Amino acid sequence: MLIIGIDPGSRRIGYGLIEKTACKINLITAGILRIKAKNDPSALVETKNHFLALIKKYRPTVLAIEKLYFAKNQKTAMAVAESRGVIIFLAKESGLIVREFSPSVVKAGITGYGSADKKAVAKMVKIILNQPELQVIDDVSDALAAAILASQKVFSS
Amino acid sequence: MLIIGIDPGSRRIGYGLIEKTACKINLITAGILRIKAKNDPSALVETKNHFLALIKKYRPTVLAIEKLYFAKNQKTAMAVAESRGVIIFLAKESGLIVREFSPSVVKAGITGYGSADKKAVAKMVKIILNQPELQVIDDVSDALAAAILASQKVFSS
Repeated sequence: MLIIGIDPGSRRIGYGLIEKTACKINLITAGILRIKAKNDPSALVETKNHFLALIKKYRPTVLAIEKLYFAKNQKTAMAVAESRGVIIFLAKESGLIVREFSPSVVKAGITGYGSADKKAVAKMVKIILNQPELQVIDDVSDALAAAILASQKVFSS
Repeated sequence: MLIIGIDPGSRRIGYGLIEKTACKINLITAGILRIKAKNDPSALVETKNHFLALIKKYRPTVLAIEKLYFAKNQKTAMAVAESRGVIIFLAKESGLIVREFSPSVVKAGITGYGSADKKAVAKMVKIILNQPELQVIDDVSDALAAAILASQKVFSS
């Protein structure tokens, strides 16, 4: 079973694809989708094109994505939520199972500690995937962490 | 030229379709799209089905939609933003011109006063459309107000 984790954003979208086998989790690919469009409507269409290209290439069964909670910048928050809406909508319509987790649940699931910092999450992601050399920037690490958590939840339920 | 105004929501979406002719604005139709799905991913797919059905039936040229600003309920705000993202994305992909206005710009454009209450907006919508008997609940009134403003902006630019 293939699981795609997404860290949504209006101009940078982290993604990570993992494969869950009977006894372990393998990294398939990970990276950043960069959205070049200047205005939001065009950015949403570009987000769709990038995301559907990934879905068509790898055919994952599950989308894992963090829930959003914001305080600081409301304008950015809205743009990220709109991008997230498009991704969830496309995943659902493409027949994927959608798993949403709050950030603290992802952190607790990966590191054992719900308030873990990004460094701790990235470290555990590398250990779980057995990829000590993997360069995991924040967006990618969060995407992979959500995917790993979903792989545990899907198989334990 | 047909313009569709949308007041986005996660479970209730106000819509209003107007026609701008050389000398006046006509009401075509208006109402509420009610989303029955219990969970958010399914609600986004249902939003798409309702919205695309409207687009296909009336073939508007322009989507007019308010920008979102929130403070009170962050969870609701995120769900509304996700719904809004899907609507803007579908409009853009269907070839519509997308016009976004802040709520205060819509109010000022319709009533002359940026902090006008909903009652004043509804009253002016009825006058502008020459529909004294129209029952305009909040979502519908806001959707029509955005459409009316877009009709002015599209033609004056």
